[in-house]
Amino acid sequence: MKAALITIGNELLSGFTVNTNAAWIGQEMGNIGIELRVQHTIGDDKEHIITALEDVSKDMSVVVVTGGLGPTHDDVTPSAFYSYFEDKPVFDEQYWKELTERFSRINYSIPDLNRNQAMKPEKGEVIQNMLGSARGLQFKKGSCHYFALPGVPKEMKAMMMSTVLPFLKSLEEKPISVRTIRTTGIPESALAEKINKKIISHNFPCSVAFLPKLTGVDIRLFGQDAQNIRDMEEILTPVIEKYVYGYDDVSLEEVVGNRLRELGLTLATAESCTGGLLGHRITSVSGSSDYYLGGVVSYNNEAKMELLGVKKQTLEKFGAVSEETVREMAQGVRSLFKSDLGISISGIAGPTGGTPEKPVGLIYIGLSSGKEVAVKKFNFFRDRDSNKRISSQVALNMIRLALKNE
Amino acid sequence: MKAALITIGNELLSGFTVNTNAAWIGQEMGNIGIELRVQHTIGDDKEHIITALEDVSKDMSVVVVTGGLGPTHDDVTPSAFYSYFEDKPVFDEQYWKELTERFSRINYSIPDLNRNQAMKPEKGEVIQNMLGSARGLQFKKGSCHYFALPGVPKEMKAMMMSTVLPFLKSLEEKPISVRTIRTTGIPESALAEKINKKIISHNFPCSVAFLPKLTGVDIRLFGQDAQNIRDMEEILTPVIEKYVYGYDDVSLEEVVGNRLRELGLTLATAESCTGGLLGHRITSVSGSSDYYLGGVVSYNNEAKMELLGVKKQTLEKFGAVSEETVREMAQGVRSLFKSDLGISISGIAGPTGGTPEKPVGLIYIGLSSGKEVAVKKFNFFRDRDSNKRISSQVALNMIRLALKNE
Repeated sequence: MKAALITIGNELLSGFTVNTNAAWIGQEMGNIGIELRVQHTIGDDKEHIITALEDVSKDMSVVVVTGGLGPTHDDVTPSAFYSYFEDKPVFDEQYWKELTERFSRINYSIPDLNRNQAMKPEKGEVIQNMLGSARGLQFKKGSCHYFALPGVPKEMKAMMMSTVLPFLKSLEEKPISVRTIRTTGIPESALAEKINKKIISHNFPCSVAFLPKLTGVDIRLFGQDAQNIRDMEEILTPVIEKYVYGYDDVSLEEVVGNRLRELGLTLATAESCTGGLLGHRITSVSGSSDYYLGGVVSYNNEAKMELLGVKKQTLEKFGAVSEETVREMAQGVRSLFKSDLGISISGIAGPTGGTPEKPVGLIYIGLSSGKEVAVKKFNFFRDRDSNKRISSQVALNMIRLALKNE
Repeated sequence: MKAALITIGNELLSGFTVNTNAAWIGQEMGNIGIELRVQHTIGDDKEHIITALEDVSKDMSVVVVTGGLGPTHDDVTPSAFYSYFEDKPVFDEQYWKELTERFSRINYSIPDLNRNQAMKPEKGEVIQNMLGSARGLQFKKGSCHYFALPGVPKEMKAMMMSTVLPFLKSLEEKPISVRTIRTTGIPESALAEKINKKIISHNFPCSVAFLPKLTGVDIRLFGQDAQNIRDMEEILTPVIEKYVYGYDDVSLEEVVGNRLRELGLTLATAESCTGGLLGHRITSVSGSSDYYLGGVVSYNNEAKMELLGVKKQTLEKFGAVSEETVREMAQGVRSLFKSDLGISISGIAGPTGGTPEKPVGLIYIGLSSGKEVAVKKFNFFRDRDSNKRISSQVALNMIRLALKNE
């Protein structure tokens, strides 16, 4: 099935809000085998919405519209839908009563402005919204299904999950199966080289797409036969096993966290150039206090010496960005927190601070596990943000690999 | 002037890449008074590109296309442009020589695949790309100017800045002036209440837009007379002075960093629920080592006691999330790093860990400046990521306010 998406909002065009809804919807549709073919962003204008509906509908089975369902005068999507589908809305007494009660429970008397959210279509359906007052709309014209959803990401996502996606899935006679293999630590071209022969030689009716990002490459397998996808996964995984950290939506910080919990191990972090990003990522997982004890951001040399016990001579002889320093940082943070593992990062994030011997992008990462300290050296990028992001990813991956065969 | 944007790429439709280019372009155009009216995302398909060019061109003065300029077979934008503008590309010997030399400098022999990047139009112009091999294209049809730029954000941005935006600015007889007042610590409605009367009573030919985000509200002033904008800024700022942290593109972490440097003060951080995010934001500013000494992520109680010197009785009597604990954390991290200021955060980020007395979203932030420790209590949101983000913002803002009148 082919789909089109119309996202409505002046704040999207002015660039004030990044359109993350579009990416999320594209991904979720892809996961059930619906191909998003085109996406339009337009302003809060009824005529523009009607024109966009006309423009995108050709050859589509699904059209999703987000935004423009609120109570203010900007919110013109319902009005555009009623025109486009030649429907007349009626006032929904029961929903109005429900809304009034909801508002009174939080000690508000409902503004009259909200009355337009209690309208419902005659020809179409409403889509319930458990998180807000704006209900969605569903219509059918020809063989195409149309949905209007709020632009607030949480509400839109909940309504897609509870209503729209299950409905669309039920339309597919043979829904498409999708499996994403998530890898890190290997560039796209090298990954392709490793598995392309396998893909070609097996010649399954299963498509393979490489999705490269700064922090890793995802391999998306999709096709109509779930068994083929499983077979392909089984054939590909052994060849690239070292690089595969998980499947589908899992993040590397979750994988590492789960493994630490499984093994009953604890972790502490010593960060220099990443400034706390590694700790931030680890603690973005709910329940991370089970295994993460904490860390030190040792941004200056005194902190490296006094908190982490890095020797003065080490800093003088080799510098703060060196194999020797990260080795002592990893050991130091491990003793400081009495954790099973200590991970350390020191490098030159840029854009300033580089020298011919130690250029911007030079990063050392150390992992102390008691038995030994493993240190790796990297030459990453020229910009600060990318260096911080890739360093935190590589550090997490070093922990993952160290715990793989524990 | 009205503009349209076409972003090309299957990875945008599949949701693998979030379309940050669209937001950036919308913002930059807005800054020189060009209104982005519509944005289409389509796949890597020549016919779709031609159709999109036809669809969006009506009434537009500017059409920007990004993506599809690389050397691989997916990159079909030049071919679509040559068709649409009925032009015939010619091989640019000089550029090919230049490209060959660039590749040889990094010890690569140039692949034949790159030859198509050395084509140039007869009717149109090329746009130089200092960061990559794909040059841009510029055409004019009727009164509309068309630009094709790479999809790689860094290359696209550099080319917009050096070539496209200056060209567009030169077209405007009277370009629009824009000034953004950045505020934090006050909701949109309260901000509007404070300044709406001023806006109405002065009745300048200057538009005012409120742009609310999780971490603050931007006020955008724009109009054709730069003097009006300056006058409006002067009238509004005193009424909301406390909440204004900067203007235009500046971030709160930059403002705080600059002020610390100006005063010759140093800072250390003690983070619990934010897990390192505050340190990460502070160190996202190049040169932050001038004033940021480092921090402790005291995720467990032992770290709070042993590293930061929080008393056992304090934790037992009041708990880790309490006014008393963040007070001792702020003082503790200040002594540990011998910094002028110590800032601490402890709270319940959620989604689990809340109780009736201490619900998810309860966050304490402390600021120790030697003279005293200021502690503030907040009740934020129900989701982990928002709680972490808003906590780091409020902590930075507490530092800003404390240093305002130093």
